[in-house]
Amino acid sequence: MNLYFLGTGAGVPSKKRNVTSIALQMLQERGSTWLFDCGEATQHQILHTNIRPRRIEKIFITHLHGDHIFGLPGFLGSRSFQGGDSSLAIYGPKGIQAYVETALAISGTNLTYGLEFYEVEEGIIYEDDYCTVSCHKLDHVIASFGYCIQEHDKPGELLVDKLKAQGVPPGPIYQQIKEQPAVTFEGKVLHREEYLGERKSGRKVCILGDTRYMSKLKDFVKDADVLVHEATFSKNETNLAYNYFHSTTQQAAQLASDANVKELILTHISSRYQDDDLEGLVSEAREQFPNTNIATDLSQFPVS
Amino acid sequence: MNLYFLGTGAGVPSKKRNVTSIALQMLQERGSTWLFDCGEATQHQILHTNIRPRRIEKIFITHLHGDHIFGLPGFLGSRSFQGGDSSLAIYGPKGIQAYVETALAISGTNLTYGLEFYEVEEGIIYEDDYCTVSCHKLDHVIASFGYCIQEHDKPGELLVDKLKAQGVPPGPIYQQIKEQPAVTFEGKVLHREEYLGERKSGRKVCILGDTRYMSKLKDFVKDADVLVHEATFSKNETNLAYNYFHSTTQQAAQLASDANVKELILTHISSRYQDDDLEGLVSEAREQFPNTNIATDLSQFPVS
Repeated sequence: MNLYFLGTGAGVPSKKRNVTSIALQMLQERGSTWLFDCGEATQHQILHTNIRPRRIEKIFITHLHGDHIFGLPGFLGSRSFQGGDSSLAIYGPKGIQAYVETALAISGTNLTYGLEFYEVEEGIIYEDDYCTVSCHKLDHVIASFGYCIQEHDKPGELLVDKLKAQGVPPGPIYQQIKEQPAVTFEGKVLHREEYLGERKSGRKVCILGDTRYMSKLKDFVKDADVLVHEATFSKNETNLAYNYFHSTTQQAAQLASDANVKELILTHISSRYQDDDLEGLVSEAREQFPNTNIATDLSQFPVS
Repeated sequence: MNLYFLGTGAGVPSKKRNVTSIALQMLQERGSTWLFDCGEATQHQILHTNIRPRRIEKIFITHLHGDHIFGLPGFLGSRSFQGGDSSLAIYGPKGIQAYVETALAISGTNLTYGLEFYEVEEGIIYEDDYCTVSCHKLDHVIASFGYCIQEHDKPGELLVDKLKAQGVPPGPIYQQIKEQPAVTFEGKVLHREEYLGERKSGRKVCILGDTRYMSKLKDFVKDADVLVHEATFSKNETNLAYNYFHSTTQQAAQLASDANVKELILTHISSRYQDDDLEGLVSEAREQFPNTNIATDLSQFPVS
């Protein structure tokens, strides 16, 4: 898993930061990439990465503000132009389907692939063999959601050396041992739990949309491996943050700390802050939560 | 007048060419700039120019394909965010109003200024003291228009030296001579035509949307100072151009030649052509019409 930040600014694009989009690359895990938000010129940012539009399988929209959705019709059209043929699922607040369908219809854009829309409410919105995606309502001017991707735990590896030592040779029996609680081999009962290594915990990645600080998100993002949280303002602007329904660096760090996450990545930085300010912004977050980083456009964070 | 090319590519953005938008700066003439088309990331391109969004007074859309309109909602929102307060007029084919209004409504974008929509048909679509704008239907997959901006001729300057030589001293009488066919001064009849220099012809700028070659456009763009014409393909691809409702370099040059325009600027270049190909493309057009140039992103062409 790799988090690839395509746009990390707030509200309007600047020369340094495009409006919001984040790619979660899961090439080894599922051979695909998921996109979280798709602000204007997301497809332009993708031109500077190794991300292939046709490999983008799902797009999750946190909320319907323009800086999070205005790149969607163009991205969809270009994915089609470039020969994308696998269907694509779009998750987002009510309204996302009407927005996309109107833009495509009026512009005469005929896609070479199918679109599926899922207008989300709180709770589990997707589940398969690999992971569960749940979403939680945030505190913003309009309906805004955070998404958590939780990988399923993986069973431990078969302890082949131990089996061999006990005289069980490789063969179809190994698969049976993995799949069944107990198997009889040459009159001896083999209990699975004795021949499997430690279970591997699935990772948890949480990506939140625009929001005020919400202490009650603690349970939703609890123990996440990575929390991506907006930090539109510095810690000195709590009033501005509150009035505009955004968060400060330190509020994001507070949630990361309360929820015992492993790593915090700040994004959605106001254009009032220049390059020189970034060190200060990250420092004030680290006071509260040491393992904090600030995303810049095209920065990458492997999820270990 | 200055033509500022913000995006000169066809269909999808590339690293070299953004999708279509052209600014016609008329700062000396009317203190404002007009935009022709607004593909995705036009506002991003503007960040690299001296163009001020709040100075953009009118936007003309040639047709509703995504590479010509998907930057409109974001541009409008950012113009508002940056404090634009003068109203803005949008001209384009039927559907442009529904597209913009849906995008703004669903994204919760409240503008600080008013929008006026004019869904165009052929003919004169705007006129004021300074110029007339007319439009003509083109030959494309969907309704597509070309726009001609025709400045009004200006009356000649008052021949002050001649008046003085004839004993007419400066004063309110000078204004009267400019405004009335004949004025009596100290018993002598002064005829305006004798005291004004040569009339100054207004300039004509024609900007066409996507189109197949149309010989009958000759009258519409006749004698233009500048003709901006698409040239999606090289002269060797007339079949492709025809099938996709586009033009070749040489077809654009043919029209320029037939219509006796002064300068031809080619734009909307397919991403199949790289930097190395440009000289060839412009050469083949110049065979037909010598005063041809190819626009690149952020290139400027003063209209003399």
